[in-house]
Amino acid sequence: MLSSHKIKIIQSLDKKKFRQKYNLFLVEGNKIIQEIPNSAFKIKEIFSLNLENLKIRNVESSLISPAELKKISFLQHPKDSLALCELPLESPFQEFSKQIILDGIQDPGNLGTIIRLADWFGIEQIICSEDTVDYLNPKVLMASMGSFLRVKICYKNLEDFCAETENANLGTDMKGENIYQFQFPERFNLILGNEGKGMRPDTFKNLQHKITIPRFGNYQNTESLNVSMAAGIILGHIFSKK
Amino acid sequence: MLSSHKIKIIQSLDKKKFRQKYNLFLVEGNKIIQEIPNSAFKIKEIFSLNLENLKIRNVESSLISPAELKKISFLQHPKDSLALCELPLESPFQEFSKQIILDGIQDPGNLGTIIRLADWFGIEQIICSEDTVDYLNPKVLMASMGSFLRVKICYKNLEDFCAETENANLGTDMKGENIYQFQFPERFNLILGNEGKGMRPDTFKNLQHKITIPRFGNYQNTESLNVSMAAGIILGHIFSKK
Repeated sequence: MLSSHKIKIIQSLDKKKFRQKYNLFLVEGNKIIQEIPNSAFKIKEIFSLNLENLKIRNVESSLISPAELKKISFLQHPKDSLALCELPLESPFQEFSKQIILDGIQDPGNLGTIIRLADWFGIEQIICSEDTVDYLNPKVLMASMGSFLRVKICYKNLEDFCAETENANLGTDMKGENIYQFQFPERFNLILGNEGKGMRPDTFKNLQHKITIPRFGNYQNTESLNVSMAAGIILGHIFSKK
Repeated sequence: MLSSHKIKIIQSLDKKKFRQKYNLFLVEGNKIIQEIPNSAFKIKEIFSLNLENLKIRNVESSLISPAELKKISFLQHPKDSLALCELPLESPFQEFSKQIILDGIQDPGNLGTIIRLADWFGIEQIICSEDTVDYLNPKVLMASMGSFLRVKICYKNLEDFCAETENANLGTDMKGENIYQFQFPERFNLILGNEGKGMRPDTFKNLQHKITIPRFGNYQNTESLNVSMAAGIILGHIFSKK
């Protein structure tokens, strides 16, 4: 049985402060939990409705009831299992030829969706500004559909990083060059800004190229595309040349 | 002041059954409400925190308090105004050269996002299967960011429609042709299936072409892309040739 103390700790893990305090974060669902041993992450403890279905060894595991799972899950419809994992150790930084940079993304769904996109297109690393939502937030992990296990994600001071990177910095800007005419360089950082305010000036000044997705509809009132959708369309176009 | 009877009616409008019973649906936010007079929709009544900010004439309007707005709004953070609108009359059906067909889309966010995409790319019409979520659902309207005012949306029996359309039916299928190699025909229906189950067999059998977005990442466990993201990437690619 789950102690009320442990329930309280798990329930607090939707907040970054408590993830750091306890050095823990949560992963839900057998499908994703089973991939953890092959990733850079480490499971500390598992709680499951049916341990037989989980093929993971050498990890402390407890059988729990659906009522207990409901208490500790952050899902509206809890899945089969929940794993407490240790926060990852910071690994030495390495640049990749194709990276995504996020400047102040706030919506967990957007970050999760962008991680999932990076995984699909084989973008190995996402570099986030320090004020971007934490990728170990349960809502981000949910939206990433397990892709956080396969994409490197780090947080950096973007002003410094964008000045020092060896890749060309490409940023979205409504007055930028049409992506369909733009020649994408071999090495690039695709930079995406905050949902409302866009990129901060310190990031914007380090752009080598500004790009935009042209609108084909004829209505002036059309809202610009959501940031994760814009990322998908740009990546889809870049990879059309491969 | 808002009568409790009226509050009850408005609060029921998140359900299709009550939208049909009262012949009403809800639009929230000055920005979108102000576009309604230039669309195919008609406002019946407006409730606003500040009527001066709303430049709409000849419509019954009431000043309400923030507490009243909170009661009738479906938003977590209610905006400035809320408009009760009449359900649209069915207009005579017309085919367009580029259409989206949705077969059983259930998630309101996905439908709203696809409407917004259609608006961006100038796709004039979306044809939904009868079991696709109702586009006048408040969550769909919210996600569409006002684009439902500019894109024609209708509900049809897809088996009949797909057999009779003059456009080529293109559907997503994991075993389909790579979109980057596929020659998109001039007239097409882009058909997207249910989030979990995909297209129903009666739709699938009417496809002239099956297409897929290739995965560039190297991991077998990567989840396939969400349906609205797939729509965005495919449309982005189609329009790269324009």
